Amino acid sequence: MEVSDGNDWQALAKRIQRLEDIEAIKRVKYKYFRCFDTANVAEIADVFTEDVVLTVVGGVYKFELSGRDNYLAMVRDGAHAEMVTQHNGHHPEIDLEDDRTARGLWYLSDYVQEFRRKQHIMGSAFYRDTYVKERDGKWRIQRSEFERVWEISETIVEMPNVTFSYLATHGHRLPPGDVAQFKRDD
Amino acid sequence: MEVSDGNDWQALAKRIQRLEDIEAIKRVKYKYFRCFDTANVAEIADVFTEDVVLTVVGGVYKFELSGRDNYLAMVRDGAHAEMVTQHNGHHPEIDLEDDRTARGLWYLSDYVQEFRRKQHIMGSAFYRDTYVKERDGKWRIQRSEFERVWEISETIVEMPNVTFSYLATHGHRLPPGDVAQFKRDD
Amino acid sequence: MEVSDGNDWQALAKRIQRLEDIEAIKRVKYKYFRCFDTANVAEIADVFTEDVVLTVVGGVYKFELSGRDNYLAMVRDGAHAEMVTQHNGHHPEIDLEDDRTARGLWYLSDYVQEFRRKQHIMGSAFYRDTYVKERDGKWRIQRSEFERVWEISETIVEMPNVTFSYLATHGHRLPPGDVAQFKRDD
Repeated sequence: MEVSDGNDWQALAKRIQRLEDIEAIKRVKYKYFRCFDTANVAEIADVFTEDVVLTVVGGVYKFELSGRDNYLAMVRDGAHAEMVTQHNGHHPEIDLEDDRTARGLWYLSDYVQEFRRKQHIMGSAFYRDTYVKERDGKWRIQRSEFERVWEISETIVEMPNVTFSYLATHGHRLPPGDVAQFKRDD
Repeated sequence: MEVSDGNDWQALAKRIQRLEDIEAIKRVKYKYFRCFDTANVAEIADVFTEDVVLTVVGGVYKFELSGRDNYLAMVRDGAHAEMVTQHNGHHPEIDLEDDRTARGLWYLSDYVQEFRRKQHIMGSAFYRDTYVKERDGKWRIQRSEFERVWEISETIVEMPNVTFSYLATHGHRLPPGDVAQFKRDD
Repeated sequence: MEVSDGNDWQALAKRIQRLEDIEAIKRVKYKYFRCFDTANVAEIADVFTEDVVLTVVGGVYKFELSGRDNYLAMVRDGAHAEMVTQHNGHHPEIDLEDDRTARGLWYLSDYVQEFRRKQHIMGSAFYRDTYVKERDGKWRIQRSEFERVWEISETIVEMPNVTFSYLATHGHRLPPGDVAQFKRDD
């Protein structure tokens, strides 16, 4: 009978931990997209570190924000009652840097119809994220860089036949009045 | 030389089993979508328990069905020869409840063009599934709840230029005559 | 105290290796799509074996090519500066055949607007791949079979409002002149 020595044991446990961490990090991002598109501000709060930073470059969205509270305000305003929105993160390329830090690269597909703005935006982008495992053992997004691959923005001339909208009942209510379209400012 | 004790050993094996189960459950759903969109009734049968229940709420599809045979009939009618259909399940959030039961949450993207019905439906939804590992060691879908996030349904005025359709040769042949559009009835 | 015997130990290590291999193979394909859509010929080279074979059947694309150099030429020409392109691989069904060979089945969603050709193509397909782990320990694509599920090809009558295009600055420059649309030749 062979007996595994301590080094082997530690090595196996570490490899399992790596696979578990990768799965856990994917789930952080999955929760992010699910909560974003359903305006679930309460649940999405748990995916960010308190000092999270988001940068968005390329196309009509262009901004940087810092801090969980500012991110949550963006989620609330970004998924309001007069729109449909879909963000899907594909192709997760997750690399652990150490036990508590990881990097992730995602291929985003996004589709938005903003009825008040009369603007339809679709395209793809890469997310380059940094994740940290905090003291409670949960992985969270500490930094997220959104970089466009392509984007098409069209004015909505005729209202589509929306047969269901979760956000219509659960999204943030916009104040009355016209809302300007997003435009490139560079 | 350190030696791992029995408890540690069992714990490692259990963690590996959990990762394997998660991968196996994802594949059940992948097979489901692949077979649905290609009208592969023979192969899809294996992803359901005999007592499977499906509930669909929100938007133009709205029904509940029970039992594998009824599900298979729905697959056959739902993917017929005069349509193109695409269902992609993203963001799998799989939680094992015990060795033989698991829950899964999926973010669906769906795109359907029904040429006989002259109806184009697209949107997104969540699937909340229950999976069980049956006596043969295979995970199967026991319960599936489909809940709409958004849906747009348009009448097809001009036939698109379909340059390939697998279903045209492999899908169920509709009997002659007009087919009514799906409509919300709530 | 129980002690795990050598057979158990090997079995656990093998199960971990299988999970790691599956994750590594997924990442090969993720890198493939990311590099294809950004015309990253330098980085994509590493995902192919030198004798890679690609077959494409069904719809307007129809060809077979052999060898990494020919594949790289196709990537360069296939993602040029006057287009937007998006290929997302969903639902990976990866099966290891032995330590160095694996098969993969993917559900592709593709969306292309070719502005010089004035052609908009969208659809879905299956990829059936063979992967081999080469001497440097890296998995690579040795064979890839693309089979259409559905495809719609429309002539672009009015240019969409492209608000960002990574390929416009990073893609291959087409020589001047008209470019013929892709057409089914079967």
